[in-house]
Amino acid sequence: MNKSLFDVKMWVKDMQQGKRIALARIITKIENRDVEVPELMKEIFPLTGKAEVLGVTGPPGAGKSTLVDQLIYASRAEGKKVAVIAVDPSSPFSGGAILGDRIRMQRHYGDTGVYIRSLGTRGKHGGLSHSTKEAVMALDAAGFDRIIVETAGVGQTELAILKLAQTVLVVLVPESGDSIQVMKAGLMEIADLFVVNKSDRPAADQLVRELVVMVGMNSDHEAKWSVPVLKTEAVKSVGIDAVMKSLSEHQSYLDESHLRNQKRTSFLSEEIEDILLEKFTQKIKESLSSKKGKEILSDLTSGKITPYDASGLIFKI
Amino acid sequence: MNKSLFDVKMWVKDMQQGKRIALARIITKIENRDVEVPELMKEIFPLTGKAEVLGVTGPPGAGKSTLVDQLIYASRAEGKKVAVIAVDPSSPFSGGAILGDRIRMQRHYGDTGVYIRSLGTRGKHGGLSHSTKEAVMALDAAGFDRIIVETAGVGQTELAILKLAQTVLVVLVPESGDSIQVMKAGLMEIADLFVVNKSDRPAADQLVRELVVMVGMNSDHEAKWSVPVLKTEAVKSVGIDAVMKSLSEHQSYLDESHLRNQKRTSFLSEEIEDILLEKFTQKIKESLSSKKGKEILSDLTSGKITPYDASGLIFKI
Repeated sequence: MNKSLFDVKMWVKDMQQGKRIALARIITKIENRDVEVPELMKEIFPLTGKAEVLGVTGPPGAGKSTLVDQLIYASRAEGKKVAVIAVDPSSPFSGGAILGDRIRMQRHYGDTGVYIRSLGTRGKHGGLSHSTKEAVMALDAAGFDRIIVETAGVGQTELAILKLAQTVLVVLVPESGDSIQVMKAGLMEIADLFVVNKSDRPAADQLVRELVVMVGMNSDHEAKWSVPVLKTEAVKSVGIDAVMKSLSEHQSYLDESHLRNQKRTSFLSEEIEDILLEKFTQKIKESLSSKKGKEILSDLTSGKITPYDASGLIFKI
Repeated sequence: MNKSLFDVKMWVKDMQQGKRIALARIITKIENRDVEVPELMKEIFPLTGKAEVLGVTGPPGAGKSTLVDQLIYASRAEGKKVAVIAVDPSSPFSGGAILGDRIRMQRHYGDTGVYIRSLGTRGKHGGLSHSTKEAVMALDAAGFDRIIVETAGVGQTELAILKLAQTVLVVLVPESGDSIQVMKAGLMEIADLFVVNKSDRPAADQLVRELVVMVGMNSDHEAKWSVPVLKTEAVKSVGIDAVMKSLSEHQSYLDESHLRNQKRTSFLSEEIEDILLEKFTQKIKESLSSKKGKEILSDLTSGKITPYDASGLIFKI
């Protein structure tokens, strides 16, 4: 049999026509860094560029998934198809991602306009942000109007992933630590919108005030977008309308300021970088396990040369 | 002035002679990926290869830092110099690393045989595990006999970092979730030693039994090292002697099984890979911001070519 069992064009076509199994299988191939990914992405890329990409982050317990759920319902009410990618680079201690997907999907059972999927860790160097970018492109090509990338924590990987979004929403609760932590975490630089959730709690107003002050200090005078600080009680659907309104205003701002194009260019630059680093990592591994590579490693372990010398012998770049 | 204010050979010499400011400054340069790092590492590398490197991980609240503190005291009682690198790739929500260093150092105030330092996130692709490897080499060259790399969480970055250690100790508490989480987190594959801390709690014995069963299932018949499951109450110094004994037995095992050499080779292979990827990332960025790079990006954003085409035009590898 000459023909691959996985017919790239057919699967992408099926995905466009709304077949869930095709979408799921394509994202799994992306997650696993399958050899067919380059071929897949060549089919998928021309179909992209239409979706609105929203990043949502916040500490564990801030009510991120409840808020995201409310945004799904509100987006559906606007007639938009919504997909959620829950990125979980760390902390399997805190619970099973796959089980989480199933429970969350059940709430939207039977609604073909909603798709929820988690992405875990594969590979080493930037693997997860690479997979997230390509999964966003697949969902965009599959016709989802709004793609929400949800991530907990604010490490290296998470910040890189959030930078891929057009709009970044940061959810906090009074208990999640003071606003100084927000500064330290680098969230001030990436937040387009702050949401103080569980806003019925006593310390909520103080957190709002602190954030408003910090937003004021951080914004320069020419900035056309002033970062809103909104209050929600996501479990009771309180404040969701205001969040939806701000998201829509931020989308208009992206067009007026030409930031949308800048963001698309930087998304695609990152994609080029990740493609090249993935290939190069493969080349290094091949070179290290070749005869010459083993000789170099042996000279290194015996102390004849240093790692920086050895790297120059493995690859001249 | 022709001469750099930072004289690499002099600083490395000062570090070897126990000058703390030299050590701290060198590690800061490593953390910041300073241009002088290659030159520094050429001086440092020939002085390495003597230290015992221990990785410690476990979920937040397991008592990692209390246990590490006890291991410091016990190592000092053996006359060994001990350094701790606390790696914190994520979650600035959970508290300030630098403040933590100071509080922890105070407990060992005046003891020149103890050094505690945290490392945070710099750069993107594998930056933190690269810095951690080079900081370990610096501490090794500075004459520390035992280097403890402590990390919370078990994400991509943390697992990569733990693989650099000769011995990996996983700390759990009954509350940290069941043993299935341990499996899912990939800890079964990397643990050389399990410690159930806070072992006075009721569910401790059950966790120990589960871990013993899992260790049994996981080990093949030819394995010469059977992973111990030990109980401690680190706050009361209970069980520390047994942990120290196991650590020493694992060191003997590394020599008998020739695993020590394998681990050194893999540590150094990873270092070569990280050096090359750091250089290559720089090259990609330069290429993308060149005139040709901008033309390629423009063809990409206008949809004339795909990211995989574009990457081939930027670099032929």
